[in-house]
This record gives sequence, C-alpha cells and structure tokens, in this order.
Amino acid sequence: AAVLKVYADRLSQPSRAIIILCKVNRIDFQELTVDLARGQHRAPEFTKINPMAQVPTIVDGRFKLFESHAILRYLATVFPGVPDHWYPADLFTRAKLESVLDWHHSNLRRGAATYVLHTALGPALGLTPNPETAKEAEKLLSRSLGTIETVWLKGDAKFLNGNPQPSIADLSLVCEIMQLEVVGDERRDRILGPHDKVRAWMENVKKATSPHFDEVHELIFKLKARLNPAYIPMFHNNTK
Amino acid sequence: AAVLKVYADRLSQPSRAIIILCKVNRIDFQELTVDLARGQHRAPEFTKINPMAQVPTIVDGRFKLFESHAILRYLATVFPGVPDHWYPADLFTRAKLESVLDWHHSNLRRGAATYVLHTALGPALGLTPNPETAKEAEKLLSRSLGTIETVWLKGDAKFLNGNPQPSIADLSLVCEIMQLEVVGDERRDRILGPHDKVRAWMENVKKATSPHFDEVHELIFKLKARLNPAYIPMFHNNTK
Repeated sequence: AAVLKVYADRLSQPSRAIIILCKVNRIDFQELTVDLARGQHRAPEFTKINPMAQVPTIVDGRFKLFESHAILRYLATVFPGVPDHWYPADLFTRAKLESVLDWHHSNLRRGAATYVLHTALGPALGLTPNPETAKEAEKLLSRSLGTIETVWLKGDAKFLNGNPQPSIADLSLVCEIMQLEVVGDERRDRILGPHDKVRAWMENVKKATSPHFDEVHELIFKLKARLNPAYIPMFHNNTK
Repeated sequence: AAVLKVYADRLSQPSRAIIILCKVNRIDFQELTVDLARGQHRAPEFTKINPMAQVPTIVDGRFKLFESHAILRYLATVFPGVPDHWYPADLFTRAKLESVLDWHHSNLRRGAATYVLHTALGPALGLTPNPETAKEAEKLLSRSLGTIETVWLKGDAKFLNGNPQPSIADLSLVCEIMQLEVVGDERRDRILGPHDKVRAWMENVKKATSPHFDEVHELIFKLKARLNPAYIPMFHNNTK
C-alpha cells in the first residue's frame, strides 16, 4: 500500500502538530516539505493537490485532505494503532474536545498567528508589520491564554478538559503557542509570564510527546536565532 | 428525561443553524432566548452555564456544550432520528466535511461577521464601524464565496462536497451568508451577485429545510427592516 504523504513546512504550527502526531504514534509517513518562504505552496504541482495552497495537506492513497484539525481527526481515526485518548470515541469527551478545536480558530490561532506575523515574522516574509494590529492581536492572544487556564485547565488539570492523557487539541494548541518563540524571549515571556498553568501544561504535552516534540520544533528555534541574533539556539537544544 | 435546552438568539447565525437542525429532525428541545443586544449573555445566570458568554449553548441533562459546530456534531450523533447525511459516519465523507467546518472559522465566518459588524450592525450595537476593516472583511468574504464555488460546489454539486443531501456544514455556512440580509439589498447583491452557484446552493439548503429555514430567519428580516427603512419585510415573507 502507498505510504501516507504529509505535505508540510515545520515552520507552520499546524504542520508540526500533524508530524508530531504521526511520529508519536509510529504512523508510517513520508514528509514532503513545501517551503512557504519560497512560495512552493503556490506552485501548480502543489495547488493540484490542495487548491487552497496551504500546508499541512495529506494524501492517503487516493484520498486528499487539508485543514489541520480535519487531518488530526482523520489520522487518529483511520490508523488503528493510535490510542483513544488522542481523539476519544466517547461521545461526551469527544464533544468537549470538538468545542476546544472549534474555539481555537477565532481565538488562540487568530491572536497568536496575527501577533507573530505583525511583529518578528512579517519583515522576514516581506510584510510591513502594523503595530496597531499587533496590539489587538496580543490582547486576543492573552485573553485566549486566560480562557485556556480558567475553562479547560480548571483545577489540577494535566491536559485540556482535565483528561489524563493529551488529545489532538492539546497538540494543536501547544504547537500554536510555541510559535511565540520567534518573537524573542522578552515578548514571549511578557505574554506567557502571567499564565503559570499554561506553561505547566505545555511542559506536560512536551513530555508526553518526547523526544519528537523537541525534534520537530528544532527549525522554529533556528528561525528564532535568525530573527533574534542575541538568542543562541545551541543552549536551548543542549539543556533539553 | 429532561428535554434538551438550547440557549440562542435568532439574530446570531450559529444559533439559527442549531435551531433549524433541531426542527428539521424533530428533536424535542426548549429554546431559551439570550438577548445579545440586551447583554443577557453576560448575566451571571448565563455565564454559569457558558463561561464564554456566547450563544448558542446547549444543556442536555447534566451535559453542557458551547461552540456551534461542536453542538451540531453532538446533536447529529446523539439523537438517533437524525439521518446520516447531516454528519456522515463514513470516514472519508466525514473528513471532507470536517475540512469545510474547520475552514469556515477563519474565512467565511470571519469575513461575513466582521463585514456585517463594521457596516449595518455596528451602530445598532453602539460600535463605530471602521470602513477600512469593512473593506478588508468584504475582500475575505468574497474570496471565501469564490472558494465555496470552485472547491466544494465544483461541477453540478447540489450540496457541499457534491453530497446529494445537506450536512451540518451546509447549514452552518448558509446561515452565515444569510446574515448579509441586514446590510441591505444593495450591498448583499454586490457581494453575492457574482456567485450564481452559491445562490443556487443556498436555495437548495432552504428547500431541504423548509419551512423551518424561513421561519427561523424571520427575526433577521425584521432587523433588516429596522436597519434599512426602505425594505418592507412583508413582501419577502409573502413571496416565500
């Protein structure tokens, strides 16, 4: 049988979530890099596969799929070796998880992705950051982190919704927050500083997906070093 | 057993999608109006049920749920009388549907909701519309309508993904587009005019959910009449 193809750029947070899910669950897959900075997502060879010109995208035999949450759900369902906790079959547990996945788009994702684009990442992609947009995005991002703490990590929750093991929602949201590495330690710490529970939960997700989490995030630390010359990625990798 | 409680405001597009799904499938439910214009969603009695202070929200026995797509999935799964086409059990059909549902948030929903808020609806809610924001939102909205036509209504598709019957994605997206009624016929026609397939698909969804679709949308036509004095809602209702 043809192996699962994952079209991804590890600099994209949803791409990383898919790759980590595959690696942690030993899903046999071929990673095909679509370099966003070089515009490879707009190449006709790729838009034939995904007309939206976005990564991640998967091709599983004759089946093509885009949108990262749809892909995470599909992989967790179609590969029998993936433990239930990643996308629980229980109706109520799953519904609560869907609620987080849906909420993500217009809140954490919109806040974090917009903030990163309108601060450190924009200039690297030839976009002029708009400080007003960055300010609004930071507000939405901080509000979203507060919601995660007070709603989904209420009490002593180790993972979202108080689940004892991580789900695809934990993976998606933590990979999104990891994108803040590229804005530099000062801004990242200002934003994440007030959220002890979020930081503890991120560590739980990292541990539960070790060593793949760190390995798949190596590229984002290289970008961080390029955009923030004071930062030396060696130290980071050595202490892990 | 306790009846399903649906907390909703029919002026909210995701609320309408939930109510229509319930009515079409004869799900026994109690509709509890949370008047957004009066700030009832911020009342402590309601935030105890949904800390996000948003509608729609459901309470099914001891189970509480928010986020409209999560609710649509839950209702279509938990009530055995709901035909499979609303949320297909087939792994591949469902995955393609999830892709549309996920795409919706950062594209059609963001474009349409932002456009409506920064044109006709804002002033009614005490918000000063930003013309630049409205312009950007219209671009995203038009691009999203184009995507629906070229990707999900490709060929002679009657419903999204070429399905022969409507799904929860059809319902969610069409209710979102219906929100354009409040901006008045001129702006609505400018935006929807170039998209014949979108308009034909909207009619298909209306017919498939008749008479509930029109009934649940009555309130939005009343708001349209209030915001656009030249519009007489009587004519609309009589020609249906």
